[in-house]
Amino acid sequence: MAANYHVVGIGNAIVDVLAQADDAFIAENGLNRGTMTLIDAAQAERLYAKMGPGLEVSGGSAANTMAGIASLGGNGAYIGKVCDDQLGAVFRHDIRAAGVTFESQPVRGPDAPPTARCLILVTPDAQRTMNTFLGACVELGPEDIDPAMIARAQVTYLEGYLWDRPKAKEAFVKAATLAHAAGRRVSLSLSDPFCVERHRDSFRELVANHVDILFANDEEVRSLFQAATLDEAIHALHGDCELVAITRSGDGSVVLDGMTTYEVPADPVERVVDTTGAGDLYAAGFLWGFTQGRHPAECGRIGSIAAAEVVGHYGARPERSLADLVAETLGRSEGY
Amino acid sequence: MAANYHVVGIGNAIVDVLAQADDAFIAENGLNRGTMTLIDAAQAERLYAKMGPGLEVSGGSAANTMAGIASLGGNGAYIGKVCDDQLGAVFRHDIRAAGVTFESQPVRGPDAPPTARCLILVTPDAQRTMNTFLGACVELGPEDIDPAMIARAQVTYLEGYLWDRPKAKEAFVKAATLAHAAGRRVSLSLSDPFCVERHRDSFRELVANHVDILFANDEEVRSLFQAATLDEAIHALHGDCELVAITRSGDGSVVLDGMTTYEVPADPVERVVDTTGAGDLYAAGFLWGFTQGRHPAECGRIGSIAAAEVVGHYGARPERSLADLVAETLGRSEGY
Repeated sequence: MAANYHVVGIGNAIVDVLAQADDAFIAENGLNRGTMTLIDAAQAERLYAKMGPGLEVSGGSAANTMAGIASLGGNGAYIGKVCDDQLGAVFRHDIRAAGVTFESQPVRGPDAPPTARCLILVTPDAQRTMNTFLGACVELGPEDIDPAMIARAQVTYLEGYLWDRPKAKEAFVKAATLAHAAGRRVSLSLSDPFCVERHRDSFRELVANHVDILFANDEEVRSLFQAATLDEAIHALHGDCELVAITRSGDGSVVLDGMTTYEVPADPVERVVDTTGAGDLYAAGFLWGFTQGRHPAECGRIGSIAAAEVVGHYGARPERSLADLVAETLGRSEGY
Repeated sequence: MAANYHVVGIGNAIVDVLAQADDAFIAENGLNRGTMTLIDAAQAERLYAKMGPGLEVSGGSAANTMAGIASLGGNGAYIGKVCDDQLGAVFRHDIRAAGVTFESQPVRGPDAPPTARCLILVTPDAQRTMNTFLGACVELGPEDIDPAMIARAQVTYLEGYLWDRPKAKEAFVKAATLAHAAGRRVSLSLSDPFCVERHRDSFRELVANHVDILFANDEEVRSLFQAATLDEAIHALHGDCELVAITRSGDGSVVLDGMTTYEVPADPVERVVDTTGAGDLYAAGFLWGFTQGRHPAECGRIGSIAAAEVVGHYGARPERSLADLVAETLGRSEGY
């Protein structure tokens, strides 16, 4: 059967609430600068009450990646759980309006947990500190995985954050198993260094045995192998996955193709405003290149271009056509 | 009694949903380019389904003005009606986080209309086309006007949009009457040329007899007097109000102080991104200057500075401190 989705993404369906904050605010509220922390409903209410005026935009790591795939010209589908509430309607509208298939049933009823939100404090250095109330996301389970959809996708892309909830983990394993049974690729993003800490052993087992294309940043991959240096982590990884892309913020990325390593530069950004979504969009560019049969280093290059667009404005989804941007940028350069 | 609010604003409490759109989208959907159109729940749902991915930010004309007053360093309060729903919580959070007192009771219950939203299409020329579903705003009535609050405010500021609903109109008249009884000023924004068309006779009566400080743009003030030219409209106005400020987009504003006219330049903007809120923030700057006893032309100048900030980004509320911006800009120049 020919694949008619380039990528299916599975993740926590979240609406982001972005506010500016200074370093003192991060310190006073004991927040974990630059990372993602899970919070409960009461903590979310307390933090929200202290935050500055917000800007609401749809987010969620794998959902941002799927919006990127669509903006690059790909066919994508997304699986994730919202509530039948106003923020759920916002999430559903935005991902569909971005051109991504989204058919997951929302949770309903008077006791249904609300749609997840991520309270994001953006500091003057454009770094984001994320505080996620998972809400309806905790209801995502194996019953939400449509086997036909997975079988029809060239790549099934999973965010590591799913590993935080037992039911979502079951959904994750089911999707990966179905993808491989259909001869498709499985891709994983490690998501966050603390997420790796929480699940190191099972992530190692996953990476060694079930993941074809792995995304991680420098810190996450070092944490995975408790390695002191990136080289040590790369050594530990070689042979585990078909392709590995390791992002290093402004220093670009390293792509491992079997035993070969490529260094890929970052794309220039006029002014970095908000780094939310940089990793998600790098994965979008890379996976899009992969589905088009591009060279691994060029996949990384497309990842860099997509990431550069999203850090130039608030919000974690592209504001302009990534397909145009890639054509312009690669057209100007002499290949990767 | 000394005033301890510089300004109390009364208006429709709205969450804006901004999306990019091209001119073809405006034409195909029969939208009224550059103006505000009232739509019902079904129309809102249909338009939203067609719009691109959105960005949600608190809006509402007078509410934006009050956020501006707070950013300039003023004490402000806002009266407006939201529902006890997620978007209502967003509106309440944002206006309070901006530093504005907001104590209006939300509407509640299973049949309560939802919090108002304004679907705003921003075209490549940075013009905004607004489509407002009033929702809970229709419940604003005279019972929401707190006489003590009005008596404590140097200026009570009313948006013309209130005139669209009988109960809100009653609230408007009650607030204006209370303000004058306490020896305070009443200020009105004409809001929108279509709003002026709908209510020309009663707006004329209001302006002639009840308004001390009037805000309008070129088109609105011409429509008010069915005047062919701005000069003709200015002639018709002279003597009606203590102060009149007429905005002319990139051409700055004209301030009328009795029989004297001042021309005030617009402030330079690096790149106009979204003109939503330009008039609201001009009013904020002007009123702030007025409460500080500044010269009328300087009030206009502060209005220009506040308006220039808000058109440089998406959303109708300031992203940086207007107090700092005014100090920097007026500090650099040789007075107005």
